[in-house]
Formats: sequence, C-alpha cells, structure tokens
Amino acid sequence: MSPSTPFDPDELLRDDEEQAPAVRGPRRRTIGEGPAAGREILTNTASTRVARVAGLARRSARSKHRRFLVEGPQGVREAVRFSQERVLDVYLTEVALERHSEIWQEAQDAGLYAHVVSGPVMEAMSRDAQGVLAVVAMDEATGSEALARALEGARLVAVLAEAQDPGNAGTMIRAADAAGADAVILARGSVEATSPKVVRASAGSLFHLPVVTGVALDDAVDAVRAAGLTVLAADARGDFDLFEAGDLLAAPSAWLLGNEAHGLPPEALGLADAVVSIPVYGKAESLNVAAAAALCLYTSARAVR
Amino acid sequence: MSPSTPFDPDELLRDDEEQAPAVRGPRRRTIGEGPAAGREILTNTASTRVARVAGLARRSARSKHRRFLVEGPQGVREAVRFSQERVLDVYLTEVALERHSEIWQEAQDAGLYAHVVSGPVMEAMSRDAQGVLAVVAMDEATGSEALARALEGARLVAVLAEAQDPGNAGTMIRAADAAGADAVILARGSVEATSPKVVRASAGSLFHLPVVTGVALDDAVDAVRAAGLTVLAADARGDFDLFEAGDLLAAPSAWLLGNEAHGLPPEALGLADAVVSIPVYGKAESLNVAAAAALCLYTSARAVR
Repeated sequence: MSPSTPFDPDELLRDDEEQAPAVRGPRRRTIGEGPAAGREILTNTASTRVARVAGLARRSARSKHRRFLVEGPQGVREAVRFSQERVLDVYLTEVALERHSEIWQEAQDAGLYAHVVSGPVMEAMSRDAQGVLAVVAMDEATGSEALARALEGARLVAVLAEAQDPGNAGTMIRAADAAGADAVILARGSVEATSPKVVRASAGSLFHLPVVTGVALDDAVDAVRAAGLTVLAADARGDFDLFEAGDLLAAPSAWLLGNEAHGLPPEALGLADAVVSIPVYGKAESLNVAAAAALCLYTSARAVR
Repeated sequence: MSPSTPFDPDELLRDDEEQAPAVRGPRRRTIGEGPAAGREILTNTASTRVARVAGLARRSARSKHRRFLVEGPQGVREAVRFSQERVLDVYLTEVALERHSEIWQEAQDAGLYAHVVSGPVMEAMSRDAQGVLAVVAMDEATGSEALARALEGARLVAVLAEAQDPGNAGTMIRAADAAGADAVILARGSVEATSPKVVRASAGSLFHLPVVTGVALDDAVDAVRAAGLTVLAADARGDFDLFEAGDLLAAPSAWLLGNEAHGLPPEALGLADAVVSIPVYGKAESLNVAAAAALCLYTSARAVR
C-alpha cells in the first residue's frame, strides 16, 4: 500500500526529465573505483525519477505506464539475463554494486540503463529491493492468442484459479518453473502478475516461462485441452491419490490449482478430467496451496520423465 | 509490529479484572438467539481485557505471560480440538459465531471460556483473526528433555535451522504435519514458534505435533541421531537427487531445512549423514524453502511407507 500523496506522481513525468540539471555542489558524488568508477551517484530523493519509480507500487501507475518493479538481486538478475529487451532501468546502491557486481556487469554488457543510487534514493524507490531494483516493461502475454502460443508443444502447465494471495501466486510460479513447466496461466480473478509481492515471491521465475493473464478459467481449460493436455484439478475432494495416480500423470497435463482460503471453485472441479488429492498422513486439514502445487507439479514432472 | 504505547498494557492487569463493573446502559447488548442466546456481547474496546489480548502481539508480553494468540477459525478450531487444556479464552464475533458455530459448541463442550465480542472489540484485539481468536498458554516443549520425549519412536522429523521468515516457518510446520512427521524442531536462531505469523501460517498444525524450541542445531542433530534417525540435509549442493535417493529415504529420517535467503548454514551440511538436492527441471535457481520442505518430507514419507 503506498501512502496517499497530495499529487499524482505520474503527472510529474516529463520527457525532458533526463536533461534536468543535476543537483551540483556538496551533494554531487561519483564512484571512486570498481566497475562503475566515475559514474555519478543519484542522490536526489526528490527527483521526478524517484517519484515515478516509487509510483509503480500502485496498480494504476503500472497499468498506465505499462511497466513494473522488480525488487531484489535475484529477480533483477533473472530479468537482465532472460528478459533484457524488457528491462528499462536497473538501479543499484553502492553496497549492492560491490556485492552483486555481476548484475551491474551483465546490465552493462546488455547495453541497459544502469544507475548507482544512494541508500536514501533506493529506500525512497522501494523498501524491499535489498539494494537492487529494476523497472521492466510489461509484456503482452495476455489473452487467447498469447495463450495459444504459450501452449505450443507444452507438456506441463499450471493454471492458477483465483490465486489471490500474492506470495502464494509468486511461489507457485516459481514452483512451476522449478518443475520444468512450460507455462503458467494466471486465470482472471487472480492477483495481478506484476504486483510487487508476486514478482518478489516468483524470485525471477516470471522471466523464465510465459505467465499468461487475462483469460477466464473456462477458456483456459478449453485451450489446454485443445492443446492435448489432460486437465487435472488439485483438490482435497479428489478421486485419485496423487501418489497412486500412475498412468494419469504420465500424459502431458495441466494442473488447476486453487487459492489458499477456498481451494478450487466448484465449477473448476467439473471442468477437470480428474480430481487428484494429496494424501494427508498427519492431522493437518490440508497443505498450503503453494506447497501443494510443488508436490503436484513435481509428481507430474517425474511421471512424464 | 505493535505501535508504541504511552504505558505498558501489562501493567493494567489486575486479578479483579473479571469483576470490574461492565459498562451498562445503551452499550449493553446480548445475543438474541442461537447457541449463545442470552450471552452478553463484549463491546468495550477500552477494557483491560482488550488491551491485554492485543498486547500479546508483542513478544515481551508473550514471554512475560506465557500465552499467545491464535488468529482465525482454522487455528482456533484445532487448538480447541487438540490442545483444549491450553486454551484460556476463545473470542468470536457475532458474524463468526453464526458461520463457525461448531467452534463455539466445541469450546462450550470442553468447558472453555468463550466470549462473543463486537466487531470493534475483535478489531482492537487482532486484525487478522477473521472474527475468531483464542488466547493459548505456551507449553513447555523446549529444551533437551522435551526434545527427547518428542523423539521417542519418531520416524520422520523436520529440523528447521535458522528459519527466520515466520510465514515459511509456519508453512513448514504445516507441511511436516501433513506429511505425517512426528515432530518439528525449531532450532535456536529461528523465529519464535508463537509469533502471530508463524501461528497463522501453521493453520493449526502447531497443535497437532510437538514443535520443540530452545535447542541449538548441533544438539538437535545429536539428539535425532541418538534416536536412530538418519540426518538428511536439504540443500542445492547435494550429493543425492531427492528422487533417486532410494534406500537412503527408506530409513527413519530427520530433515535439516534451511532458510529462504541463505539455505542451510555450512556447518549444518557437515552435520548431516547425506546432503540431498531437489532437481530443478526448469530455469529457477531453487524452490521456496517451504515448497522444498513439502517435497522432501513427502518423498520420505512415501519411501518409509
């Protein structure tokens, strides 16, 4: 949640921003040594640039400018490596520059705009960046055409239905990536894929595989079925035990995964070819949804291999 | 983080609190119908009771009074079912009373102190309770004797080393419970087991299996080995693939699980009988630690069965 401001920072955006005279005098500092030697350190916490970047914490600003924040070294590193054409700016503090010089170097090699900023400037742009921040353009993996492209040749897909907790959504994207899934579909009614917490929890996986948005759940199910995938719903009310499902899992599959509070919506169970449950050996009622996703996706990945 | 207060609410605690005259007049309301008909609704947000309960968000108050908060219907339900001797008070709003009448009924049947509170009173006590809150006494599963008791006959144990993110710690306790683990050891240097986020993320599992605290990691490893368990470290630098580890997993085991940011501390790898890795089939560097815990514990549980 960003604090309310007396003005919309977006309104401050001007094309001549980059040419605005920098603050000179005692506040001007440059890097003494290392890979960024001679570069000026951005120290003005009141600049329009800082306001613009910080503003991307708000959904409205993300939608308007079609860009979002990637916070933390892992996410930024993966964005620079796997989606450099979308990376608009990279920001590192001096401390982070020393610790993560490879990020700076890779950004330089890719010809990206990379900036060294003071601690207060970083803090003003993001409190969750651990010194490393990027602004990345949204891509267009949204709608039925993007979905069809993402599903070409796919053998393992995660379909998140009403994923409303951003931490869980990001963790599920990361688990899908680790399990070797070909795509994630974040069906309509889910959190926004570019909200800061989703991006952070995905730990860079957002840049490793297509994450398709803007598709209704039933359209997503139609599409994955048309792509030849078996549709499996992960739900406690299942007919199959995940670990006894055998042949069912050997076919290319799309997993429908629900949300933490309510599991899958009832209509989703009806859309699936089979409903599969993770057995609970102890007294827990269920698993956390992201842990459940990891188990389902890995069990499928193992069965297909 | 609780806001700083001009006084310590604990200092307000008096033994005669229960006998303090209730506020009469227009603020007095009673329940009209249902299982709690005739019961007075607690409406005074300024009462010492409210201050005392809200104060348990602070670690110092929990330590001093040896009690903690359980927020949300799932956690409270499990506390009432599995640890009723430790439940000191149960609070429900009118709305929650209707939706979760079984919690009220079970609390009544167990002879627990159950209270109906107004929305503002609940809000003042906790913002994460979804209308259902309990105050529970800490138990004494701490130190080497408690550990030895918890390990009697154990075949699957999770040892959390430096678990610092409370959400992940709670989710790992829940995953251990679901996988049928006999105990969780939250080694020294980890978050406090009774902090509100750990309790919420454990979704009641805290009341299903012993969660032993106050033990150093090396002492925990000595104890689980003395109990006849193989010590497995989950780490990306492993010699064994989790899914190819075969016989290694068929023996009763204790899993050493690290933290999100740094994995296992190097000395923990040296303490283990074997270091086991979850294969990554995609481009992710690793899995979320709680998802990894679920995979390791379930794979062991399957191998032992």
